[in-house]
Amino acid sequence: MKNAVDDLKAKAGAAKLASRRLAYTSTDIKNKALTFIADDILRRKDEILAANERDYKEAQSSGMGTALLDRLMLDESRLEGIAGDTRAVAALPDPVGDVYEMRTMPNGLQIGKKRVPIGVIGAIYESRPNVTVDIASLCLKSGNAVILRGGKETINSNTAIVKIIQEACKRAGMPVGCVQFIDNTDRALVDEMLKMNDVIDLIIPRGGAGLIRSVASKASMPVLTGGIGVCHTYVDKTADVNSAVAIVYNAKVQRPTVCNALDTVLVHADIAADYLPEMATELNKAKVELHCDARALDVVKDIKGLKLLPSEEADWGREFLGLTAAIKVVDSLDEALQHIEKYGSGHSEAIITEDYENAMRFLNEVDAAAVYVNASTRFTDGAQFGLGAEVGISTQKMHARGPMGLKELTTYKWIIFGHGHVRP
Amino acid sequence: MKNAVDDLKAKAGAAKLASRRLAYTSTDIKNKALTFIADDILRRKDEILAANERDYKEAQSSGMGTALLDRLMLDESRLEGIAGDTRAVAALPDPVGDVYEMRTMPNGLQIGKKRVPIGVIGAIYESRPNVTVDIASLCLKSGNAVILRGGKETINSNTAIVKIIQEACKRAGMPVGCVQFIDNTDRALVDEMLKMNDVIDLIIPRGGAGLIRSVASKASMPVLTGGIGVCHTYVDKTADVNSAVAIVYNAKVQRPTVCNALDTVLVHADIAADYLPEMATELNKAKVELHCDARALDVVKDIKGLKLLPSEEADWGREFLGLTAAIKVVDSLDEALQHIEKYGSGHSEAIITEDYENAMRFLNEVDAAAVYVNASTRFTDGAQFGLGAEVGISTQKMHARGPMGLKELTTYKWIIFGHGHVRP
Repeated sequence: MKNAVDDLKAKAGAAKLASRRLAYTSTDIKNKALTFIADDILRRKDEILAANERDYKEAQSSGMGTALLDRLMLDESRLEGIAGDTRAVAALPDPVGDVYEMRTMPNGLQIGKKRVPIGVIGAIYESRPNVTVDIASLCLKSGNAVILRGGKETINSNTAIVKIIQEACKRAGMPVGCVQFIDNTDRALVDEMLKMNDVIDLIIPRGGAGLIRSVASKASMPVLTGGIGVCHTYVDKTADVNSAVAIVYNAKVQRPTVCNALDTVLVHADIAADYLPEMATELNKAKVELHCDARALDVVKDIKGLKLLPSEEADWGREFLGLTAAIKVVDSLDEALQHIEKYGSGHSEAIITEDYENAMRFLNEVDAAAVYVNASTRFTDGAQFGLGAEVGISTQKMHARGPMGLKELTTYKWIIFGHGHVRP
Repeated sequence: MKNAVDDLKAKAGAAKLASRRLAYTSTDIKNKALTFIADDILRRKDEILAANERDYKEAQSSGMGTALLDRLMLDESRLEGIAGDTRAVAALPDPVGDVYEMRTMPNGLQIGKKRVPIGVIGAIYESRPNVTVDIASLCLKSGNAVILRGGKETINSNTAIVKIIQEACKRAGMPVGCVQFIDNTDRALVDEMLKMNDVIDLIIPRGGAGLIRSVASKASMPVLTGGIGVCHTYVDKTADVNSAVAIVYNAKVQRPTVCNALDTVLVHADIAADYLPEMATELNKAKVELHCDARALDVVKDIKGLKLLPSEEADWGREFLGLTAAIKVVDSLDEALQHIEKYGSGHSEAIITEDYENAMRFLNEVDAAAVYVNASTRFTDGAQFGLGAEVGISTQKMHARGPMGLKELTTYKWIIFGHGHVRP
């Protein structure tokens, strides 16, 4: 273990050193590295696929479930997808070096802000090997050195991929040591990593809620937490029924396993009798299980073939991550707002309404990363929001909120041009 | 103690509730509250001064030093200053509600960011009672509820001031509970407060390095750390000697007890013989003690009357907070950059040069909140940078860097206007 910790410290030190140079490495060199990575992932696909096969067989023999096995598996077409994503990051504008808010003060001092990388980013993630390339390319493009710590199920795939990334970076002239990989899967090393706030500026955990909470509670440096979304859609009494049905169906069904998928529908009592049967029938096409409060149950209980259960207190504020939704009838917008305030996770919340005042109140009063009028919460995503790519979705309030793209992986420094200025 | 914790929880809960309303309280009402606070501080000055006298006498009889006693003391002119600062905050533009980066996506969805308050801010600070008004007014103007926890030396003054603030807020129509004050000075309550990450969104510690480190290490929520500045000024070989002398004198002497004051002068070897005698003679007018490395000492050792000491390793990276400076001769800009990288605290760093390339390299390569060319580091300040007022100076990299004004006490949420949009 001592050797492993020493090795980790050496790698972190190398990343720190690299980060200083990376901060002013040109966009051309960074893009060249990303292009080389994309090229080499395809050119050396046999190495990656052979390593991935070893991971797959080990996971299979250790009894991993089909869904996780599928996430772990790589094939030629997935590698083409990964290479394409890397090229897409290369094509994005580089946020680093942007000078803004530059102004001349009355004393002649010119003061402004310059966008700079954060420094060294530690990424702690689970299973999917594409995350290795994804996080590395976003960090490199934004000028950050990165220390990668993937799951033990993908250790062979990650080792092969990182070797390719490191060699591509070297060939492109990137600072030595800019991508570090922890190849020891002992969990104790994660704890060591989380203590290193002198070297690692930011930790990005990617994975399940358990991983994220554990990292956030142990880390001595800032952590970009997110990935947990208890998302509500409130169907106001003035909602267009067809539109509300389509939006709720989309928010729940289009990709139910992700954080921006709908969890709870709040329906105004005045529209419940018109709306709920339509909604329930539509959601039933995808076999969505509905956990209904007494009033909602009353409206839909006689419709044949629905998967219905009476709701329990634990259904409110629950992230289902599957084809289940909680349904509640409320008497007013205020009651909906209070419910969201109490049970929401600050991710994505929507109102469906034709009423101007209610739309405005919802936008103003709901405290979440993304607040929608008449649209599906599934849009909370870096690409959908025009950021090009995302490293995650933040549900915290400091630094960045919602989808985090390249700009959110940077900070700024004040730059000041003087001519012998002294403070009176 | 249990009662005190219950009381703290009740206050924090009330602040949370208030923060939801405060988020959309109009600028007019917030400004009215600040104006009432300023008015009432002067109108009810006798209450404050009587309470302050009790603090002063207790501190005096417990043996507090003159400098701290002076920081604690209030008089009519200081109250006028405090009232004036509060009116100045009222006059600043309100950052809350600003909508920016609003754009229409190809699918017609309108997506943008709206600036919103952070929520509930906990302030933990020492001795000076003006900080109570200062932090409260900045938090209120930026739409945040605040929980104040001042030092026990100023408990009577703070109690009187907070009463006035709370009554002024009520009279102005601010949400009930927006300013909370912990009147129990048991240190254990600070630890309790630092655990409450479900209610308190951000902690701002103000005081000495010990307080800041202790709060940062214990807090379960984000902390805006700062206030520690090890500031270097590098005198390049092409520096204008007169200008370099004036800037170093200003950076060291104009207010030596603050975080943006100069600590270390790095001098290029080629200019050391010309520059150091002039600098040493000038700094000696203010009786600055110089801790010189061997080469610097060699240049100035024969000048009569200087306060000279040979430097020790502990002088590099030391924040002197007084009339002492460390002096080192370096052979190149690179050596200066390496020294700053190793010993700087990421606060404020300056180069004095007439060389364009060296100025640009210094600006690009130094990683600090504020990087200067040909100016005194003393300018790192919210008012000097045009922010109007500051709640502190951040030396961390996330969220805000350098002077933090009203805008830095806010965050944003994404707002999305749809017309039945669903994700394909």
